[in-house]
Formats: sequence, structure tokens, C-alpha cells
Amino acid sequence: MERSLIGETIKKVGQKVKVAGWVNTRRDHGKLVFIDLRDRTGLVQIVGGENLASLRPEDVVEIEGLVKNRPPNLANPKLATGKIEIEAEKVKILAKAANLPFDTGVAELKVNLPTLLDYRPLSLRHPKVKAIFKVQETIIKTFRQSLSDQGFTEIQVPTIVPTATEGGSQVFPIKYFDKNAYLAQSPQLYKQILVGVFERVFSLAHAYRAEPSVTTRHLTEYTGLDAEMGFIKSFEEIMTMVEKLVKDIFAVVGKENKKELALYGATLPKVSTPIPRLKMREVQEIIFKRTKRDNRHQPDLEPEDEKEICAYSLEKYGSELIFITHYPTNKRPFYTYPDPQDPKYTCSFDLLGRGLEWVTGGQRINDYNQLVKNVKKWGNQPKDFDLYLQAFKYGMPPEGGFCLGAERITMQILSLENIRQASLFPRDMERVDIKLPKAKKLHEQKKI
Amino acid sequence: MERSLIGETIKKVGQKVKVAGWVNTRRDHGKLVFIDLRDRTGLVQIVGGENLASLRPEDVVEIEGLVKNRPPNLANPKLATGKIEIEAEKVKILAKAANLPFDTGVAELKVNLPTLLDYRPLSLRHPKVKAIFKVQETIIKTFRQSLSDQGFTEIQVPTIVPTATEGGSQVFPIKYFDKNAYLAQSPQLYKQILVGVFERVFSLAHAYRAEPSVTTRHLTEYTGLDAEMGFIKSFEEIMTMVEKLVKDIFAVVGKENKKELALYGATLPKVSTPIPRLKMREVQEIIFKRTKRDNRHQPDLEPEDEKEICAYSLEKYGSELIFITHYPTNKRPFYTYPDPQDPKYTCSFDLLGRGLEWVTGGQRINDYNQLVKNVKKWGNQPKDFDLYLQAFKYGMPPEGGFCLGAERITMQILSLENIRQASLFPRDMERVDIKLPKAKKLHEQKKI
Repeated sequence: MERSLIGETIKKVGQKVKVAGWVNTRRDHGKLVFIDLRDRTGLVQIVGGENLASLRPEDVVEIEGLVKNRPPNLANPKLATGKIEIEAEKVKILAKAANLPFDTGVAELKVNLPTLLDYRPLSLRHPKVKAIFKVQETIIKTFRQSLSDQGFTEIQVPTIVPTATEGGSQVFPIKYFDKNAYLAQSPQLYKQILVGVFERVFSLAHAYRAEPSVTTRHLTEYTGLDAEMGFIKSFEEIMTMVEKLVKDIFAVVGKENKKELALYGATLPKVSTPIPRLKMREVQEIIFKRTKRDNRHQPDLEPEDEKEICAYSLEKYGSELIFITHYPTNKRPFYTYPDPQDPKYTCSFDLLGRGLEWVTGGQRINDYNQLVKNVKKWGNQPKDFDLYLQAFKYGMPPEGGFCLGAERITMQILSLENIRQASLFPRDMERVDIKLPKAKKLHEQKKI
Repeated sequence: MERSLIGETIKKVGQKVKVAGWVNTRRDHGKLVFIDLRDRTGLVQIVGGENLASLRPEDVVEIEGLVKNRPPNLANPKLATGKIEIEAEKVKILAKAANLPFDTGVAELKVNLPTLLDYRPLSLRHPKVKAIFKVQETIIKTFRQSLSDQGFTEIQVPTIVPTATEGGSQVFPIKYFDKNAYLAQSPQLYKQILVGVFERVFSLAHAYRAEPSVTTRHLTEYTGLDAEMGFIKSFEEIMTMVEKLVKDIFAVVGKENKKELALYGATLPKVSTPIPRLKMREVQEIIFKRTKRDNRHQPDLEPEDEKEICAYSLEKYGSELIFITHYPTNKRPFYTYPDPQDPKYTCSFDLLGRGLEWVTGGQRINDYNQLVKNVKKWGNQPKDFDLYLQAFKYGMPPEGGFCLGAERITMQILSLENIRQASLFPRDMERVDIKLPKAKKLHEQKKI
């Protein structure tokens, strides 16, 4: 007999079926044993007796039996298959599970974050934990679809790089045969080079940040969603593209992930059309007026400012998202396009939402000489950026782009407390699955 | 005036348009100047005089002008826009290009591989070079679509790992703060863990191989297309999934990349239904009969054997692809499922095509105790595979999977000579964009 997926059994009342999956929970009522069986499509109740007696949570089983309607008063409205149950006839154990370290058959896992992560292979099986990654899958899929529809080409760029992507120091060094290389902080330089080839590009690439700090919103390895576009008329055009993308994501998540959103009681952010755009200095002025907190001469927004301006945006514009523009030149990377009106500021933006940065982007310098000058001004050697500069030497149109982190957006849409919840196997300063031991020197490689 | 894409101009005869792009070539005929302008949608001829006189190849320009039919005898059948030209009225230079190191306005670049790579930002702009990556984009897109349609979930797994993925030694070490970690050789262990969560998963992930050799078919960083599926009845089922995937890829590339295939004179591989499946020992026997080359006691196929069996497959079955199964247990990783009929061999396979490996895969051991035993037997410590083993401890169905490299498949479909041609920015022992200098010790990180 062919396997039926659990989600289909509701349509097979009166038929014999074979289902397979994991024992989610087990309840005994006298001689009757009830199992909730779980597969990738959902849960279904199995009823049996002696033949289910040996089953324990997370055992993997294959069960043949008859699909029957439950008496209406015993239906379970929380399950998609709550009106039926399967009367077990044949039971085959495919794999036995060891005793579980915590109870997994509950609506909400009662474990702290370190335990959640230490037992990741098990905790991810929990429907509510798993739901996070179905939402993340939709976000990533929609990122690609939305940009493909706008004429962007998907690119695969390397993460082993000869020099720090943005000239910074917070990079992970790699021992590359008998040489040194680094893990890329972003695909930034490559996506810009490729504007010269494809005009519009996007990439889904892992990005690595060796930031020696532990926060609830940073990972050392994350999934970067990057895009870059040429022949722009102004940097406003990039924000318009971001606005379309974010709204596309909300629309598709809202349509395809209703169940997952409901598990978290999450609602998609309210957004105005267009999303408001304010300059950073204006924002500081507004915050000063609202709170008397005077950060008007600070070169960047503080975390509390970001929260405050999001509150303001919701009150004033009915939008949980807001673009902040024109960050100071010395707070942005060397390639950022200075505002022609006032070159102390840049044609750059952040999209904030629910108190946190969602997207960062801006126009880039596309003039070769100006770019070389800035590489030096930021304290780097043009020869270290040789390949990158070549793209500009041989003709680059006005261009710009943006990036977002898949984990960050997932966290913000579901209002999770910690970004580690939004990464299947999160990496931070202390954790690479397991806590790593300290090392004095780098493991020696085999002689080559 | 809004920009028109060059591909659309053919429909705008008699209209004023604005186009923008790069000067692909320039020809002078007395006072007339002809430009082929290139954007992401193709080429179009611009005709002008003094107003085009200063333009050089790769200059970035915006041109307004009138779209006119060419006299039929002057049409260019090689261009999609060959029946029209644009009479330049306004010309605006967006960026000047430096003198080019080689002629790019030719049907085929006349440069050797090192030059092609040294000038990657420029060489990638060439229509024939760029075409490779449009094919690659289709392959990757179809990989995702084909598996999504079969109930697979897309996963994002880390590439910074605490131990060698497969217990081997050819890994790149990373200095991870004051600890040591490695670059993952594949997402293998994670995709298996996640069969316990989603049953069917796929990932697009960079994979890193520190193989100290330089060949025409290996990269140190490549784009791995990985899939894994649970509740299989036999390992034959995995091959059936691979067969469907490969045929889907051929169908979509054949439909969407006609132009790109034509540039390479490439034809998609012929495949039989089903693709033939032969055991490795049978293959060695066949090769011995055909060539008198006696490799019948070798533990693996030699490169020349792979070529020979592909030739045989085409002759005998009319298929350029062939599955080879049942590789010896000691030539496969520790997690490979032994053949119950003869445990010296495994339930594993390679898919060969046009003389080279395309896909590798097999069934995995899903029994916890058997797996622990094998970790030890292969000379590793179970504690180093703690997280991985946990997934099996808590119940794992029979499962297996496969992986392919996007660059390798691209190379084989287009019959490229060197896999470096199929990577935007290839990495090998010597090259990380630039030739890296030798280093005695790893660059010290900033104190944290």
C-alpha cells in the first residue's frame, strides 16, 4: 500500500490507509491507546490497543488502518484532521527513540534558550518551533520571486575573499593552504561588480561578522539577502524597490503562512503607501521634541532612538516601517554616494521596523576616480581593491542597492525575542552548535 | 522620458525612445558613426555623427533618438533588433571607460584563462561569457522548483562548523575569536538532522574543499545543491528523484536558454527512461571486456573508466547519463547504508554524464547504534558528532539524499573545458580573485 500523507487522510474516511511519521504524543484510556502521529503535513489521531502499547514519543512508525469519523462531541477543532481518527491495524516500528530530555508533546516547549539550542535536532521538530522556518522559507522565496519579476539576475558569489569586504577589521581569518584569506562580511563588492554585467542582481549568501559581542539581534553567520541595481535616476528609486519587496513579502507570508502566524499570535506590520522617508537629522529633532533626549549631534541613531521613531511613525503615519535617510558620510562605508546638496551626508537609508533595522542600503559612488580617492581616505590601499575598482574603471552606471538578513526579518515578523530562535543552527561568539574549547593556535593543516 | 530596454525597441519603430547601456562596439563610416549599445536585454545599433564621436567601448551612455527600420539589405540577422536602428539625437555620457586591455567587441574573446579571470569584471560582460551564468541561474532555479513541487522544504544551514563534516581532513580551518572552527565541506550532517524535522529538505549552500590539487573540474568553493528525503522504501527511490530533477533541468534550460545554448553550440544530453543503473563491479567487467583494461579489483572507477562507461551507455542505451551503484563500503563516508545483500558494498550511487560525475548520493544509516559504531570504525569520536547523532537517537526514518555542484552541471551542459569558466569568481589553490601571497602564520585578529 502507498503511504498517505496525514494532511490527505481527512478526505479518506472509510478507506484503508498507510501513514508514517513520528509519535507526537501518547495517551492511555484503560485498554485504549491514543497516538497523535506527526508527519510533514500535520497530525492525526491513531487509536489502538495492545498494538500501540510499546510506542513512545518520537518513535518512527508506519501504521495501516481504517479512517473513521470521530463522534462529533469528540472532534478536536485544533487539528485539521480533528474530525477523524485512524483505527490501527498494522503497526511497524521504523526506529525507536530514546527517552526524551523534556516533554515535546505540549503546545509550547518549556525550556530555556540554551536547552532549546543544545537539543536543536529535537526542539526543531516541535510544530511551533518548526513554524519559524516555514515563514523564513516564504520570506526567502518571495525575495527571489519579487526581484526576478523586476529583471534581476540571481548570482552566486564567493565567501572566501582576499581582503575585508568593507575595509573593516571584524572578519574571520581562514588558513587557505599556505596563505591567508577571510570570510566575506557581505557580497557587497561582488554584487556591485556584477551590476556592470547584469545591471540588476540579487544574491542569497551567507555573511560572516566577527563582532565580539553577544546581543539578541546579531549572529556571526547569517543569511544575507542582497540586491543591487544600475541605471538609477536617484537613490529614492532604491527605496521604492525595497518598499515593493517588503510589501510583497508581507502579502505572500500573509497568504501562505496563516497557520504559522497564528501560532505566534503575530500580525503583519501595518505599512503606509508610501512608507515615510525622513532624514536622520529630522528624526533626531523629532525625538528631542518628544522625549527631551538630545542626540541631535550624534552621528547615528541609538537603539532607543530607533524604537522611538518607530512609535512616532505608527502614530503619525500609521506605518510600523519607516525609512531614515542621509546618514553622515563618516558613519557609512567608503563606497557610499555623498549627497550632492551636502556632502557631509550620504544618499543612504535604513528601513526601520518595530524598533529595529530591517534593511540598509543606498546609492554607491560609480565614478572610478572618486572611488579610488575614497578607498585611500578610508585608510585602505587601492591595490587591495583591485578587482572591485576594475569594474568602475571600465564604465559603471549610477547604481545602488540594499541588503537584509533573513533571520532578522523572520524575527521581526514573528516578534521573536532572540534572533537565535530564527536560525536553524545559530552561530555566536560562544556557540558553533557546541561550545567550542579555547585554542592557543590554529589547528595545523595536513602538509600539502 | 522613461528608459526603454533595448529588447523592447524593436516594437517602437517610428517612436522617440531613451535607451541606456554600454558601448559594445563602434564603427566609423566616413562621417557616420555606428554604435552597438548593450543593456541587460541585448544589443541595438545606434547611428549618429559628431554626437557619437567621443564614445569608446564600455563607456556608459544614455541616448535619446528615433527608432527607424533599416533598409532590408542592411538588416543584421544575428541581432534580435537587427531590423532597426536608433538615430541618436541626445547623447549623455554616464561614465567613461578606460582603454580596454583586449578587444571585447568580438564574437569570441581571444584571451587565455588567467587573463579571462584577471579581468573578470570586464570579461563577464561579454555576451558569450555572461551566457554561462544565465544557464547556471536556470539550473539553480529549476533545482529549487522541482524539489519544492515534491514537498521539499528549503533550509539554510551554517558553513562554520565545529568539526569536519565527513570526518575527513581536507577542510579549511577558521580562527573563530579565540577558538578554532572549520568551513563545512557540505551541508550533509545538517540536512540529515533536518529530515527529522521536515522529512524532505533541500539547500543551496556554499561548500569548501581544501583539496591540495589543481584540476579542470574542482573548485575550493562551490555552490552545492543538496537534497535529503525520509521514509524511503529503498535507495532506488532516491535515484528516481534525481532522474526527475535532471530531466526537469534539461527541460527548463532547453526552453529558456535556447540563445545561450546556441552560443556554445551545445545540445542537452540525451537520456533514456529510465536512466540505466549498473553496479560498479558490473561496470568494471564491461570495461574489461571492451578495453582489456583490468580494473576489476579497484575500489573505485578511474576517470578513464567513467569516460568509457558513458560511451557504453550512449551506444547501448542511447543515454548520455548513467547511474553507477554499489560502491565499496570503505570508499564511502561512515554514514553510508551497507547493502543488506552484501555489506562490503553500499546502497550508494553516482550519476555520471558525458564522462564525469554529476550527482552523488545514497541511502544513509538511520539506526542510532549502527551509526555510532560506524563513527568509531571510521576513526572518529562520537562526541565530535554529538548534535548529529542526537537526531538519530530521537528517531529517524529510513532516509537518503544526494548532491550536485551547480558549476559542474553548468560546465557539463555547455561542454566547457574548465570549471573555472562556470564560476563568476572561481577559487582554487592559487587564486582568490588575486594570487595570494604566502603566509607564515595566520593574520592576527584584533584583541577582543
